[in-house]
Amino acid sequence: MARSIVTLTTDFGSTDPFVGILKGVILGINPEAEVVDLCHDIRPYDIMEAAYVIAQAYRYFPPRTIHIVLVDPGVGTARRPLLVSADRYIFVAPDNGVLSLIYAREEALYVRHITASHYFLEPVSNTFHGRDIFAPVAGWLSRHVETEKFGDLITDYTRFAAPAPKRANEHLLKGVVVRVDRFGTLMTNLTPADLPELFRENPAPFKIMVGKGEITQLKTAYADGAQGEVFAILGSSGYLEIAANRASASQTLGVGRGAEVGVILQ
Amino acid sequence: MARSIVTLTTDFGSTDPFVGILKGVILGINPEAEVVDLCHDIRPYDIMEAAYVIAQAYRYFPPRTIHIVLVDPGVGTARRPLLVSADRYIFVAPDNGVLSLIYAREEALYVRHITASHYFLEPVSNTFHGRDIFAPVAGWLSRHVETEKFGDLITDYTRFAAPAPKRANEHLLKGVVVRVDRFGTLMTNLTPADLPELFRENPAPFKIMVGKGEITQLKTAYADGAQGEVFAILGSSGYLEIAANRASASQTLGVGRGAEVGVILQ
Amino acid sequence: MARSIVTLTTDFGSTDPFVGILKGVILGINPEAEVVDLCHDIRPYDIMEAAYVIAQAYRYFPPRTIHIVLVDPGVGTARRPLLVSADRYIFVAPDNGVLSLIYAREEALYVRHITASHYFLEPVSNTFHGRDIFAPVAGWLSRHVETEKFGDLITDYTRFAAPAPKRANEHLLKGVVVRVDRFGTLMTNLTPADLPELFRENPAPFKIMVGKGEITQLKTAYADGAQGEVFAILGSSGYLEIAANRASASQTLGVGRGAEVGVILQ
Repeated sequence: MARSIVTLTTDFGSTDPFVGILKGVILGINPEAEVVDLCHDIRPYDIMEAAYVIAQAYRYFPPRTIHIVLVDPGVGTARRPLLVSADRYIFVAPDNGVLSLIYAREEALYVRHITASHYFLEPVSNTFHGRDIFAPVAGWLSRHVETEKFGDLITDYTRFAAPAPKRANEHLLKGVVVRVDRFGTLMTNLTPADLPELFRENPAPFKIMVGKGEITQLKTAYADGAQGEVFAILGSSGYLEIAANRASASQTLGVGRGAEVGVILQ
Repeated sequence: MARSIVTLTTDFGSTDPFVGILKGVILGINPEAEVVDLCHDIRPYDIMEAAYVIAQAYRYFPPRTIHIVLVDPGVGTARRPLLVSADRYIFVAPDNGVLSLIYAREEALYVRHITASHYFLEPVSNTFHGRDIFAPVAGWLSRHVETEKFGDLITDYTRFAAPAPKRANEHLLKGVVVRVDRFGTLMTNLTPADLPELFRENPAPFKIMVGKGEITQLKTAYADGAQGEVFAILGSSGYLEIAANRASASQTLGVGRGAEVGVILQ
Repeated sequence: MARSIVTLTTDFGSTDPFVGILKGVILGINPEAEVVDLCHDIRPYDIMEAAYVIAQAYRYFPPRTIHIVLVDPGVGTARRPLLVSADRYIFVAPDNGVLSLIYAREEALYVRHITASHYFLEPVSNTFHGRDIFAPVAGWLSRHVETEKFGDLITDYTRFAAPAPKRANEHLLKGVVVRVDRFGTLMTNLTPADLPELFRENPAPFKIMVGKGEITQLKTAYADGAQGEVFAILGSSGYLEIAANRASASQTLGVGRGAEVGVILQ
């Protein structure tokens, strides 16, 4: 049997022992598990950012991978711990909407409220359920304990809607910057399906208004154009990006996450 | 036989190849070892911080885990490399006090001065014993070479005492902030055993003086109370913490590690 | 058969899912591969820095390790993806010079232009060849697909020359700072072979001019001398370093990478 893979996505950062403790707990239950750091630098408490990060990455892992997603400002309150089984993946996360984009992308979903406390680390603290609930549950899942053993199905789990593009009028599509990556590239919520005019063989002229910028170029490689030039490009996740050649589009345009993106078609 | 786990706690940061080199050396000796990053962002030369980080995490790993702890400003001087066997864990670290909290928590301890240079990487540099001594020793330990093969027992190893709470008088307990985590939460050196008045069924009224703050609330979840409100809470490692709901208590109160914490009982 | 090791050296940082996606793709092809983070904090687009980091680390890994090196500002342009077989290691990287120091150190080299697109992730994006080309190729290599299956040998690959020390005259050797590590230590391009006068039994007096500093001491341990004192020392990679005892030589001297280092022999 292939070894089990458990990934970790958290806002725990790199200066504390929290991530190490999660790994220790998982390996204590299943020393053969492969624990993979997916991302630990989610901004503190930023559920939305974690939702985008896990949604962008989860499908690239092999089937049966267990994804732990821990941005959990409500730890110790009534918010429930969840075990979510999708077609090919399993997720464990708090019920705070951090899996919303998974819910939107996956069809056959079984969402369970984790209640089987005999799988937890005892005593369960009030402030570190990653250690005491989520990591042990993932450890036992990686040893192929069946998902139904952890709790009952629920349907009233928390989900938020991702911001959708809006056609303001025939000539104007409004979107938003949903993430800024380490290179300063702005990822929008616009796809080629929203903007077929830009991605057809003879693209229509367009203007993208974002921050201080007026962008009229669509490129196919980050290195196209002059250094520092800002342009639109189709990103690797299928969304329109605003990027700059060896420079930060975010800094150049003076905008970040949440900035409005207006595409004017002529 | 279960695969061997080796953890790494260092002040090497993330911009250099030092951590990668440690992993390469361990895997070169034992390609089946599982090398786990515990923490690499200990502040440079901060032996005390590393002592707290490893003490907080080591017990969550499976028995026989080998913990490498490398904050080693004295590399190349007379300070000795140590191999420390506790009941369930093995540690390799320089003899500079970085294992002091392990010494305080573990009962049956065998501390050896590593001298068996045929296990080292040749030639041994004067500036990177992590690569040339500690990683190879851990690699061989992970292949189950017996600890007594690495050097003789010693008893005069370096240890420092962790700061202890002080009862100034019947109404005043003085403690200290020993760590600040990435969320800005202040971890103190005070436990419920030091403050039974706060943790009994009908807690006594109290006031905690720390930095600019006067704290009178004890909460049971970080999300209790209004956003930004500062309160006391029992942390997951068993120490009293000063935290804020989705905000940094450290910034709000203007204090960091080493700050005095006064608990006034009425 | 020993499990395959794949290392990752990138400028992807820690805030995005890019590194996690690489790991997912490799493990999707070979769940038994051991993926090792070597360094992800190469400065964005800094090919030279990545060249030094991988050159410093690669030899410490076991034979047959596959090293992925991804600093790839030209992704999506005509620059070729390469598979480089050295005597004991395999490298996959873009053809932008990032492997230059490997080319300089290894003798028997087979450099291939990766063209076997049936090993790629489909569809291949224009902006993330790490995910779509380099990680899958490494995944298949880790399953022992033969290197010649991935493309033809080439000889016109890109390489740059590392800066060489210059003897300005009998008394003056000029070098350069090639890296600054997290401790602020300056790594130069000077070796004992360039400066036998300093490393013989009775070293000649010397003066090293770098930034605001005039250094006349050669030490054998970082902790030698007073705290904050700046001195020369032979670093663990075999190069002369300018360091300070528990302080940053870079900050003290006000210099960084690229700074000129003049050694005056008397």
